[in-house]
Amino acid sequence: MSGLDAHQLSLNTATVRPQWTLAQCIDGAARHGFGGISPWRDKLHEMGTDPAAKAIRDAGLRVSGLCRGGMFTADGPLSTEVMDDNRRAVDEAATIGADCLVMVVGGLQPASRDLPAAWETVEEGLARTLDHARGAGVKVAIEPLHPMYAADRACVNTMGHALDICDRLGEGIGVAVDVYHVWWDPNLSRQIERAGRDRLMAFHLCDWLVPTRDLLTDRGMMGDGVIDLPGLRRQVEAHGFDGLNEVEIFSAENWWKRDADEVLATVVERGRTAC
Amino acid sequence: MSGLDAHQLSLNTATVRPQWTLAQCIDGAARHGFGGISPWRDKLHEMGTDPAAKAIRDAGLRVSGLCRGGMFTADGPLSTEVMDDNRRAVDEAATIGADCLVMVVGGLQPASRDLPAAWETVEEGLARTLDHARGAGVKVAIEPLHPMYAADRACVNTMGHALDICDRLGEGIGVAVDVYHVWWDPNLSRQIERAGRDRLMAFHLCDWLVPTRDLLTDRGMMGDGVIDLPGLRRQVEAHGFDGLNEVEIFSAENWWKRDADEVLATVVERGRTAC
Repeated sequence: MSGLDAHQLSLNTATVRPQWTLAQCIDGAARHGFGGISPWRDKLHEMGTDPAAKAIRDAGLRVSGLCRGGMFTADGPLSTEVMDDNRRAVDEAATIGADCLVMVVGGLQPASRDLPAAWETVEEGLARTLDHARGAGVKVAIEPLHPMYAADRACVNTMGHALDICDRLGEGIGVAVDVYHVWWDPNLSRQIERAGRDRLMAFHLCDWLVPTRDLLTDRGMMGDGVIDLPGLRRQVEAHGFDGLNEVEIFSAENWWKRDADEVLATVVERGRTAC
Repeated sequence: MSGLDAHQLSLNTATVRPQWTLAQCIDGAARHGFGGISPWRDKLHEMGTDPAAKAIRDAGLRVSGLCRGGMFTADGPLSTEVMDDNRRAVDEAATIGADCLVMVVGGLQPASRDLPAAWETVEEGLARTLDHARGAGVKVAIEPLHPMYAADRACVNTMGHALDICDRLGEGIGVAVDVYHVWWDPNLSRQIERAGRDRLMAFHLCDWLVPTRDLLTDRGMMGDGVIDLPGLRRQVEAHGFDGLNEVEIFSAENWWKRDADEVLATVVERGRTAC
């Protein structure tokens, strides 16, 4: 299997979060030949959703996802504010034509140690948001986060758990497979197969560095870490994924300090050589 | 369920790693009323295995475990040096009368991205070490480490994976359940039940802090984090665990900087109030 061409890549705006606005990301992704973009909502709101949708269309970019809905446990169990925000996220995903709305579901409720309660709240929040998303024609993608984020970001930490939820909730919900979060899982191959074409809604690339110096912002450029990226790509493609390969690198001490055009050029090069 | 009395606790020497030698740990554990101790091998070697065994016996302490064997992938696939070291670890565990030899199995082989190869090497290393351990009357306990250590410390990261290995290898091998590593796992309850009395060989306590500032050395004192410690204790006890509750806290910026007697007094107090 050969590597990825630029047009198979999507730029997640987190990769150049401190350097570029969404307008600059759209322009940069197009200049470097990317096939798509995946905005975070803070940058989307800065630009405005309608102007962003138009600029993305005009640049000929696909939208591999919108980051992110979820955080259902933030205020305790499913506050009106949280649910309203998730409905707005669905609507924004529809406006920009995103392939899916990526869900970071939230961790433990404030001052709680009750993980099963968090699981229940999250599933209820997903179910309600999915109702709205089906009406809006938006697919909902649960992103299982690495278990090191279970307490404070997402209490769904394996593909298996995410797909159990999908099984219960039915049509229109699937998974966003980010290699950083799931690469270590001995059940990963089975769960990718279980997910199948309809539920493999996004595929996110970066790398796991050794050592990793920060739990949040020390992700690696593809090829600089230990994840078998070609192997994982082969697996999701074998089971029907044909979306863009979205590059999302949180890197406070390295890539966020570099010139953004250098970052994108490196992403394109590593897409070819390391994926 | 009431909390733990001091005599139900075991002091893992890592909890006061920079402060105390093994001789001091033995003395301190006894003074504070602990039921046992679990030495790391570096401290054991400093003191000498035979003198340590005698001092532990004389202090009336049980040995809840020896930390640690494993690291099978350190030199690539199962070097003579690694296997010899594991045999020595078994012999030391026998000499000090440890309830089990705790196994931190090792991560990816050097310069490798091949996780299935690491799994295979680890299982072969465990099988060979187990042969020797059976002869020596030593139980072998696989400690699944948190997935954030998959690359560089242990590629067995769930109870499920560890028990799959145990199923294949048979008698004399089980698991060391450290709450820090497994608390997030949606399959944990099922796997504790699956393990059962004979394979629940050790139970390690500390806590998961929010935020966690370092991947290695920012573990919390029981009660300072988000893990449902009474709930997990209830589960392992319900399925037959009746060993000591071993306290192992890596805490470079907090507990390792305090007076060791203060640390042990706090452990005893939190055993009562937070476990």
